[in-house]
Amino acid sequence: MKFCSHCGSDAVTFAIPAGDDRPRHLCGGCGAIHYINPRIIVGVLPYLGDRVLLCKRAIEPRLGLWTLPAGFMENGETSEEGALRESWEEARANIRVDDLYTIYDIPHINQVYLMYRGELTDTNFGPGPESLEVELFHEDEIPWQEIAFPIMSETLELYFMDRQAGHFPLHRGVIQRKL
Amino acid sequence: MKFCSHCGSDAVTFAIPAGDDRPRHLCGGCGAIHYINPRIIVGVLPYLGDRVLLCKRAIEPRLGLWTLPAGFMENGETSEEGALRESWEEARANIRVDDLYTIYDIPHINQVYLMYRGELTDTNFGPGPESLEVELFHEDEIPWQEIAFPIMSETLELYFMDRQAGHFPLHRGVIQRKL
Ligand SMILES: [Zn+2]
Ligand SMILES: [Zn+2]
Repeated sequence: MKFCSHCGSDAVTFAIPAGDDRPRHLCGGCGAIHYINPRIIVGVLPYLGDRVLLCKRAIEPRLGLWTLPAGFMENGETSEEGALRESWEEARANIRVDDLYTIYDIPHINQVYLMYRGELTDTNFGPGPESLEVELFHEDEIPWQEIAFPIMSETLELYFMDRQAGHFPLHRGVIQRKL
Repeated sequence: MKFCSHCGSDAVTFAIPAGDDRPRHLCGGCGAIHYINPRIIVGVLPYLGDRVLLCKRAIEPRLGLWTLPAGFMENGETSEEGALRESWEEARANIRVDDLYTIYDIPHINQVYLMYRGELTDTNFGPGPESLEVELFHEDEIPWQEIAFPIMSETLELYFMDRQAGHFPLHRGVIQRKL
């Protein structure tokens, strides 16, 4: 933040406000304190029988790699609505949500992922504007070396493990920065 | 947003960008698109034996009403770390987290609550700067008519129900605007 979004002043510093314990963007013009908080990514693990649906990314980052449909949660929607919206936008997928499935904190990039699990209600899926391809994969067909993000690999691994056990408890995890 | 935080221009409009499907704050000066996303509130239901800990709010909104310790998640922390931080800040409470307990979407105010459940590890709690009082309550002592937020009443109700059943599954809910 270079300019105050309230008053337009360029006297914006990054310092600890009185009574606070961490630095914020402070406006020397109008006194505003600008808070920046973690963002929520909502998505779905879509399945049909013993296959799961993946999207090949048409956008950066990780263009050309595979992922589960997911994206930033928007104002005015629930996390489940957001997850279904992203599935439609990225994979034209119609899904009946079973339940929330994984929650991952990724503190070094200030993100929290909420991944649902849901069954495809038809096979009329296909790439939306942010995907190159959309395909169903059996477990032994998953391109494990070409999955875009660790959170997606972990969610897929948990799913195939739970699928053998026949139940799908909520899983929580933390993805730490690679050293 | 009145001024662009990138370039300081006052030519900020609220309109749908090309290729998008909802209005954003757009800068006519530098072309920046400013996204505003939901925020995460993290908190804890702290218990000790058959009592739960509540804080009487020293700040608006709902000053003087009772709540579970909770607040905005900060960048750089996990949701569990944030929940423990808020418990310390508001109630000087030391807690050993059992698990994530309730997740509530509140779409009309663009918030998602992640409430953990955890046992107090000692009784050295007391009001932090944002609380007037901090107290342990048996179920029949809870001031139900003076709970600050519906999300907190619902989490407390679920807890006392689950406590009778002896297990504490994750609960999801949506709080809609009162008509
Ligand atoms: Zn200002
Ligand atoms: Zn600008």
